[in-house]
Amino acid sequence: MISQTVTFLIKCPDAKGLVAKVTNFFYLNEFNILSCQQYVNSVQNTYFMRIRLNADGTGITKKELEERFAYLANPLHMTWSVHYGERKQRMAILVSHTSHCLYDLLERNKEGDLDCDIRLVISNHQKLKPIADMFGLPYHYLPVSKKTKGEQEQQMIELIEKNDIDLIVMARYMQILSSQFIEKYPERIINIHHSFLPAFQGANPYQRAYERGVKLIGATAHYATTDLDEGPIIEQGVERVTHESTPATLKRIGADIERLVLAKAVKCHLQNQIIVADNRAIVFPEAGE
Amino acid sequence: MISQTVTFLIKCPDAKGLVAKVTNFFYLNEFNILSCQQYVNSVQNTYFMRIRLNADGTGITKKELEERFAYLANPLHMTWSVHYGERKQRMAILVSHTSHCLYDLLERNKEGDLDCDIRLVISNHQKLKPIADMFGLPYHYLPVSKKTKGEQEQQMIELIEKNDIDLIVMARYMQILSSQFIEKYPERIINIHHSFLPAFQGANPYQRAYERGVKLIGATAHYATTDLDEGPIIEQGVERVTHESTPATLKRIGADIERLVLAKAVKCHLQNQIIVADNRAIVFPEAGE
Amino acid sequence: MISQTVTFLIKCPDAKGLVAKVTNFFYLNEFNILSCQQYVNSVQNTYFMRIRLNADGTGITKKELEERFAYLANPLHMTWSVHYGERKQRMAILVSHTSHCLYDLLERNKEGDLDCDIRLVISNHQKLKPIADMFGLPYHYLPVSKKTKGEQEQQMIELIEKNDIDLIVMARYMQILSSQFIEKYPERIINIHHSFLPAFQGANPYQRAYERGVKLIGATAHYATTDLDEGPIIEQGVERVTHESTPATLKRIGADIERLVLAKAVKCHLQNQIIVADNRAIVFPEAGE
Amino acid sequence: MISQTVTFLIKCPDAKGLVAKVTNFFYLNEFNILSCQQYVNSVQNTYFMRIRLNADGTGITKKELEERFAYLANPLHMTWSVHYGERKQRMAILVSHTSHCLYDLLERNKEGDLDCDIRLVISNHQKLKPIADMFGLPYHYLPVSKKTKGEQEQQMIELIEKNDIDLIVMARYMQILSSQFIEKYPERIINIHHSFLPAFQGANPYQRAYERGVKLIGATAHYATTDLDEGPIIEQGVERVTHESTPATLKRIGADIERLVLAKAVKCHLQNQIIVADNRAIVFPEAGE
Repeated sequence: MISQTVTFLIKCPDAKGLVAKVTNFFYLNEFNILSCQQYVNSVQNTYFMRIRLNADGTGITKKELEERFAYLANPLHMTWSVHYGERKQRMAILVSHTSHCLYDLLERNKEGDLDCDIRLVISNHQKLKPIADMFGLPYHYLPVSKKTKGEQEQQMIELIEKNDIDLIVMARYMQILSSQFIEKYPERIINIHHSFLPAFQGANPYQRAYERGVKLIGATAHYATTDLDEGPIIEQGVERVTHESTPATLKRIGADIERLVLAKAVKCHLQNQIIVADNRAIVFPEAGE
Repeated sequence: MISQTVTFLIKCPDAKGLVAKVTNFFYLNEFNILSCQQYVNSVQNTYFMRIRLNADGTGITKKELEERFAYLANPLHMTWSVHYGERKQRMAILVSHTSHCLYDLLERNKEGDLDCDIRLVISNHQKLKPIADMFGLPYHYLPVSKKTKGEQEQQMIELIEKNDIDLIVMARYMQILSSQFIEKYPERIINIHHSFLPAFQGANPYQRAYERGVKLIGATAHYATTDLDEGPIIEQGVERVTHESTPATLKRIGADIERLVLAKAVKCHLQNQIIVADNRAIVFPEAGE
Repeated sequence: MISQTVTFLIKCPDAKGLVAKVTNFFYLNEFNILSCQQYVNSVQNTYFMRIRLNADGTGITKKELEERFAYLANPLHMTWSVHYGERKQRMAILVSHTSHCLYDLLERNKEGDLDCDIRLVISNHQKLKPIADMFGLPYHYLPVSKKTKGEQEQQMIELIEKNDIDLIVMARYMQILSSQFIEKYPERIINIHHSFLPAFQGANPYQRAYERGVKLIGATAHYATTDLDEGPIIEQGVERVTHESTPATLKRIGADIERLVLAKAVKCHLQNQIIVADNRAIVFPEAGE
Repeated sequence: MISQTVTFLIKCPDAKGLVAKVTNFFYLNEFNILSCQQYVNSVQNTYFMRIRLNADGTGITKKELEERFAYLANPLHMTWSVHYGERKQRMAILVSHTSHCLYDLLERNKEGDLDCDIRLVISNHQKLKPIADMFGLPYHYLPVSKKTKGEQEQQMIELIEKNDIDLIVMARYMQILSSQFIEKYPERIINIHHSFLPAFQGANPYQRAYERGVKLIGATAHYATTDLDEGPIIEQGVERVTHESTPATLKRIGADIERLVLAKAVKCHLQNQIIVADNRAIVFPEAGE
């Protein structure tokens, strides 16, 4: 295998000796373990591990690695995935009217802070095309109405497939995706909701936050599932507000929370820090390798 | 009037010249204005003011002050209240099993950080009596069942009336007060709810927060109204948690948020910083007088 | 005067009747008071006021307003300034290598979130020119060495004067400006320092934060004064870090703090929310007008 | 060994296979690994591990465990310690005038939130004796002057030795301990400093924070070393303040930060979450076991 960082994400029933067995396996296969993070859910007796390896100097091929690991994993009833660092993940961004999250992702990517390859921007409006232009990215305007929704999603799917997209980011895309669409990309669609979920699910969270008189507002990045705003939460943030904050002020303050929260969630996903179980996202912290 | 701080809280339709008229009034009556805070709700065209006065050197009596102010206030359709600093507010604390908020309030009061007179602790359990004893406070054990609820609340009301209580603090009192009880004390009952409202209204918020996989938990202090957990929010706080946090850990982390949030809300109330309008609490910041 | 928002910033010795006198003045001159914020420093017996007015329907000219106000202000020993909303403030941005603050300001301005007119970007390096180009702004490359510093600053001053600049923002400009330069623009140069001042003044704050093992890092926006990193603090922010954070991680986490803190400080300045006294910045909150 | 939780803290030069070797060791000795946390400092090429074990069902004695582990550890140049859960750590609290941290620790301990045995309170003032009395704890009044300092510290040492104290907590003890004293208890004295270190080291941090006009204040818990306020930082917290905050207000707001930060740091120490290296405290998060 070429020199690269390899990440395994593992989930299985808890048992004695798991960490010893797994780390031994990689040790014997001559990997250097960069970091090894685990989490035991003692309520459900499940075990989770994220292990990062340096492939430098190993003679093993990917195929061999995966076959050998399966040999270890199967009797332990492991669900696992392996991620190779040699290829950047490919991203598509979905937007509507609001620009701040789009700017933020494009800028971070351009400055090298997101380790990914943003391939295209898709929108149901033309408004944000100049931003994609500024960053030299294709912008696909796919308008949508109740009637054309199925067709529009089909166009999106074609673009996603054609571009071999790994991750779809809804950067304030104000359309509800169909179950058919969502189910095609499990744990591969990240949405930013402009409230501190589960507070203010659904529409107009800032207006409702104003009316409820909350003293903090927030934003939530989560994987999209077929239950609207109920997918596994990856990251949340809040900011203090006061009675002086009008709905417009809340929206402005919220915009800064949204973009930070979305960027953090996307980064965690790109760095393979997340395992989902029972609609909860286990997000391992970035290891100080 | 004896030398003391006097606080007016005012609410009225917005109009030109309000601040000039009010501040002139106090100037002409020889008060020194310590601080003057206002808030204009431009959505509803309403005006709110908190004005703090030093009565030092004024010859005016309370009765004269109130009569003269009414003469100014009536044509401007003001709703107003005046609070004299010469008398400490009297507080009753309601608790059940959980001790941290009770300890916190008693300790702050003992150390002089809350400007109030805690008269008694009421509980539906005997468990926390030793804490009231430590602080030398009467503890009234009033057990409650579905059948005896009306009667028990009547006993509470008698204690509250007899002790001339101004503020009732539900410091994790795990009973739902009846509408009859709550309506007797509008904006005079503060409750601490152990979630970031409106998320996780109702029972078992920490268990539900765990199941939802949130990344931040919170607490909310609000005035009790007849709609459970829907009263005007005075103060909220949050703390970051991770997937590692079990329901028990969330409860422990939450306890620290609860006590700080409740103590802040109680302090704001005692310092007459709050005006309620349309179920929103306008909480003027503490002025640096 | 044309219909516009007018802001007065006032500082004077504390005295009885100040708020009444000032608000009366504007009331009698037929202004509508949008908001009136005050702060009394009781340690030094000084009084500060920010008052926002709607000039709609007033017949008065600017000259008359200022003359009449001076007539009120002089006997009360007021220091004051008046800011008319009809003209956007003009901004120059100084940068070196680091792009995140520059992106952030340009993007906010482009999206209409900063009420100003960014006229030019000045840098001692060519690196960030493409960003200015993306936003269609002039980029002046003015390299500097120890020897040419005076000359380079002179070129900057010419650009600033020629463009009639009101506010200079050091968006990670990694040169120390001379006292002569700074003294030309008192309270008109905002700097972002990449630490939580007064911790880690001077160079390499992230490296030093790593070495000290702090558990939170921060950023500070302040007015530049001739004492390096000692000017009046406008805004600060922090973020939690752990032992896992390498100096590079701290830098990345810090970048997000820096841009938010700088943007908030610039916004407060542009909205005339700041009065400086004794090297402390009194920053009135944005009023919910 | 009786059924209990055993914690190993390990530090050594980084090398291939460390985690495999260590976890194998415990697996082969029939321990169940509850959690295994590691940190690699890639700047200095050092490796740190905290491993928590369930001794249930192991036949091994403590002596055998330690001998066998040493056999593994020595060739790997490990520095290590082992902590058995069967015995609560014994704590002494040092105070002067300020009560909030003392209350907080005593209350948490009484309510079972700190897993320790508080044996005594020592103070150079009599003022806080009533609080120790409330909680039924011995209070040793040991006044100190410049002249009697050596003698007073000797009395403290005698009390500490006699009570077999593991951890000394300076809960706002306003005396500087001598180097001789501090060196007797390395990484066993925790101090709370009432500022966000390294800002405002030394005396009167709140007054200096006021004068500097900071917008956030903080507190820092650290191990005491012979360099005042320069020991390894365990935990820090901050809270937002404004220009309105007087030094007295800062002190009050700060008190709440201090007690939370100190309580968290003490809990981390008691749970053996900390390894110190190069004056940095590696604080492993509480594992969700």
